[in-house]
Amino acid sequence: MPTTQSADWRYRLHEIIYESNTRAGKAFDVGLLIAIFTSILVVMLDSVESLHRPCATLFNRLEWFYTFLFTIEYILRLVSIRKPWRYVFSVLGLIDLIALIPSYLSLIFPGAQALLVFRALRLLRVFRIFKLAEFLTEIDFLTTALKGSLRKISIFLLTVLTLTVILGSIMYLVEKRENGFSNIPESIYWAIVTITTVGYGDISPVTPMGKFVASVVMLIGYAIIAVPTGIITHDIAMAARKRKELPESCLNCGREGHESDALFCKHCGASLFVGR
Amino acid sequence: MPTTQSADWRYRLHEIIYESNTRAGKAFDVGLLIAIFTSILVVMLDSVESLHRPCATLFNRLEWFYTFLFTIEYILRLVSIRKPWRYVFSVLGLIDLIALIPSYLSLIFPGAQALLVFRALRLLRVFRIFKLAEFLTEIDFLTTALKGSLRKISIFLLTVLTLTVILGSIMYLVEKRENGFSNIPESIYWAIVTITTVGYGDISPVTPMGKFVASVVMLIGYAIIAVPTGIITHDIAMAARKRKELPESCLNCGREGHESDALFCKHCGASLFVGR
Amino acid sequence: MPTTQSADWRYRLHEIIYESNTRAGKAFDVGLLIAIFTSILVVMLDSVESLHRPCATLFNRLEWFYTFLFTIEYILRLVSIRKPWRYVFSVLGLIDLIALIPSYLSLIFPGAQALLVFRALRLLRVFRIFKLAEFLTEIDFLTTALKGSLRKISIFLLTVLTLTVILGSIMYLVEKRENGFSNIPESIYWAIVTITTVGYGDISPVTPMGKFVASVVMLIGYAIIAVPTGIITHDIAMAARKRKELPESCLNCGREGHESDALFCKHCGASLFVGR
Amino acid sequence: MPTTQSADWRYRLHEIIYESNTRAGKAFDVGLLIAIFTSILVVMLDSVESLHRPCATLFNRLEWFYTFLFTIEYILRLVSIRKPWRYVFSVLGLIDLIALIPSYLSLIFPGAQALLVFRALRLLRVFRIFKLAEFLTEIDFLTTALKGSLRKISIFLLTVLTLTVILGSIMYLVEKRENGFSNIPESIYWAIVTITTVGYGDISPVTPMGKFVASVVMLIGYAIIAVPTGIITHDIAMAARKRKELPESCLNCGREGHESDALFCKHCGASLFVGR
Repeated sequence: MPTTQSADWRYRLHEIIYESNTRAGKAFDVGLLIAIFTSILVVMLDSVESLHRPCATLFNRLEWFYTFLFTIEYILRLVSIRKPWRYVFSVLGLIDLIALIPSYLSLIFPGAQALLVFRALRLLRVFRIFKLAEFLTEIDFLTTALKGSLRKISIFLLTVLTLTVILGSIMYLVEKRENGFSNIPESIYWAIVTITTVGYGDISPVTPMGKFVASVVMLIGYAIIAVPTGIITHDIAMAARKRKELPESCLNCGREGHESDALFCKHCGASLFVGR
Repeated sequence: MPTTQSADWRYRLHEIIYESNTRAGKAFDVGLLIAIFTSILVVMLDSVESLHRPCATLFNRLEWFYTFLFTIEYILRLVSIRKPWRYVFSVLGLIDLIALIPSYLSLIFPGAQALLVFRALRLLRVFRIFKLAEFLTEIDFLTTALKGSLRKISIFLLTVLTLTVILGSIMYLVEKRENGFSNIPESIYWAIVTITTVGYGDISPVTPMGKFVASVVMLIGYAIIAVPTGIITHDIAMAARKRKELPESCLNCGREGHESDALFCKHCGASLFVGR
Repeated sequence: MPTTQSADWRYRLHEIIYESNTRAGKAFDVGLLIAIFTSILVVMLDSVESLHRPCATLFNRLEWFYTFLFTIEYILRLVSIRKPWRYVFSVLGLIDLIALIPSYLSLIFPGAQALLVFRALRLLRVFRIFKLAEFLTEIDFLTTALKGSLRKISIFLLTVLTLTVILGSIMYLVEKRENGFSNIPESIYWAIVTITTVGYGDISPVTPMGKFVASVVMLIGYAIIAVPTGIITHDIAMAARKRKELPESCLNCGREGHESDALFCKHCGASLFVGR
Repeated sequence: MPTTQSADWRYRLHEIIYESNTRAGKAFDVGLLIAIFTSILVVMLDSVESLHRPCATLFNRLEWFYTFLFTIEYILRLVSIRKPWRYVFSVLGLIDLIALIPSYLSLIFPGAQALLVFRALRLLRVFRIFKLAEFLTEIDFLTTALKGSLRKISIFLLTVLTLTVILGSIMYLVEKRENGFSNIPESIYWAIVTITTVGYGDISPVTPMGKFVASVVMLIGYAIIAVPTGIITHDIAMAARKRKELPESCLNCGREGHESDALFCKHCGASLFVGR
């Protein structure tokens, strides 16, 4: 714990910016979130033609105000930790940098205003608000549960993609180009639109055989949504059960991990309740 | 319990209107529900041009009949409880008031007939019918289970909204205005339409890159529906288990998890009710 | 068991038609199913203009062949049971009658061919094939599980309908008639199309406020599908567990219904495994 | 194990091609997968008009290169096993043959280029990559779980198909041909599009009665997706439990349900491995 005065303000700054334990820390987080929300709102409204024309100057000034604000915040973050490079290359640090660069680029390259939309990526900061104590356990629990399913979900998505390539190619052969299925990539796009049950209707089969193939794609998409749901439901139940396991260790052998309905230690056979 | 005659009729009125234990109480509830249903039917039919022109006078008279009926009911509710203000500011009381006001406003401001549709809010009364004994346990059980998931579902919805803002902004950059994605709010609306797999087709990508981004959005929407399903399924199972189990632990071995109709501990055989 | 000769053939006929234990019984069932499938195929093809014109006579003759076939079958069913009226008024009996009547009506009232499509209802017979032994336990299990959920699913559907009426009415107010939302019933239809995530696109909001309301409807529809899924998943697990319970009754008190991990009878406290 | 030199190279070839234990085997698998991916990419790009015209010769040469490559691979597979016919008639062998034949056919029958799309079927080889050790247990587990549900899912799909035939026929009667529901097969196609919540919008009801029937179809499709989800979720949980449990029962108390890493019975404390 630093005792000199310069390290003292650095420590207090670090507490305010990076931590949310103190009142100032929480206030900083909330204020930052409000700034992010409103800056994104400005970018959104600026893209609407009917609002852009009358308010262009106002929006431009607000944009530079926010860029200034976030630049100050970025600098403060850099100075209040020992190893600034760790923040620069962390996920949050890179997001903040990517959100700042377009504004400065637009000075050098006029017309890069469109890039200002990268600020939307700052919305990922909204997840920091979840550090507030009352949400902590739920998010923690959810992310632990979902990390386990990630591999099985990837396999599932890979299978779905393979199906769409095969079924899309079959559809391309059947509908033969005059009906919107002009090439294989378009047909694969149609298969994705259909198997996810989104169904825009911008491309849809016309021939009877095509409608039959389409029906097969639709029924597959409708039924297999059950698979990732079953996987994730199972993993959530598993994570909840692990949380529920007896935390006590066996008095005899010291091992943990006993099921909540166990009477005897599965590792050494001793009773779990002797002397309790 | 009031014994004087005036308090006597007030008590009996309260029993009829607010309670559904007696025959009169049940009949009142059913009659009220029929009145609400038919009044909403009148508003619905009145909005159809082909029915409005010939039947306008009939609908108008029915409207005033229902307004009169519900006003009487509102007054009766006020007089049959000790603290009328508690009803006025309760959820059901506010709903009833909001449903009555438009009719009177239309006297002062002609052309406010459109506001009569607020009567649809009275449909929320339909949930009162669930107080009938046979449904009571199921609704109770369901709402208890769902209250627990409410927080996790909110986090999930917040995540989905963040994704739609980010993906919608990316789509706006890619499709560049000529294809229906005229500004960022429109693009975010498109992202919501796609990630929920509704897929109207009023706006859909045209460029190959846009279709690629759209495919990503669709696959995300298709897969992550599993998350709230897993959460709610888990919470329903938990609520059912809690309902079935006696909270007490066995006096002999200390274990919990006894079914609600058990007399002896299934783990050690001791009586569950000794000394209780 | 009848011993005279006339009752003998009646019994054998009953065995063939109503039971599927014998080879003849199974063959009858399969033959009947093939007849139903092909007769429905004929009705389907007859409705296609390009096939109807050249083949009208052929289809007409096939139609009468099938009508004759199913009439014979109906008569055989009537004569091979003791109380014919029980079949006439059973569900399957009424379906068979409704499927036969249109053909005869078309003799009296020409142009009633369209009614021939009622034959599609005979497809409900396809569920009889499930009496084949290998499917029996699965169907039995599924229907038992689902009967229990029926009440909760009804409450859920009622809630969804109430939401669509309220949200549809709000949309009608917002979009004000010029955008396809011409009256309240149309708006409620739009709300059902959107909340079930079907999303035809025949009606869709145009105003920004309308798109905001639509987004709320879509997110609600997307999230609440988890509720009936959780209910049904839970009921299937419950039904499976009941099937798994120890079938043995307690040696001491004779009661059944012990959980599969119980050591002592929850009703009387005696050990479940004494002498086993 | 062969000891002569000719059988020696044949054994090593078999190890490389069919097995993925050795480094060479893994490298072969990965190389083959890259070849398959890129060959499919070539077929996809060749179908796009704007790319086909300038690059037709290049694509043609790449096509023949891949055909040559896969033919060599097919021959190598045949020579490196004892009974070549077993590969020719295995699933993977037939897929490889079907993917090769179109290229040769296009020599004899010009204009059969479209058949080159059958190469997409080779994508099914992508599932071989899952033999990599780290995925093995997950795929194994998933496929075991899903095989059990296959029967129940088939019953469910059959029920959905029956519903679409019946509801589609009803819709045909109601909308009477002028609204896109030109014949019964078209109406059944509409019913499938609607009950799977895809909702293209190419055909949609216009009459009020038709919209009412459509609402029923949509609500059915929305609610019954819960059934296969419940079935599969249950089967995944069952498969996971079986995987985790030792099948043996405790020699002392006869109970089952011991975790796979348990040494002592959790119910009575006796060793699980005495005398085994």
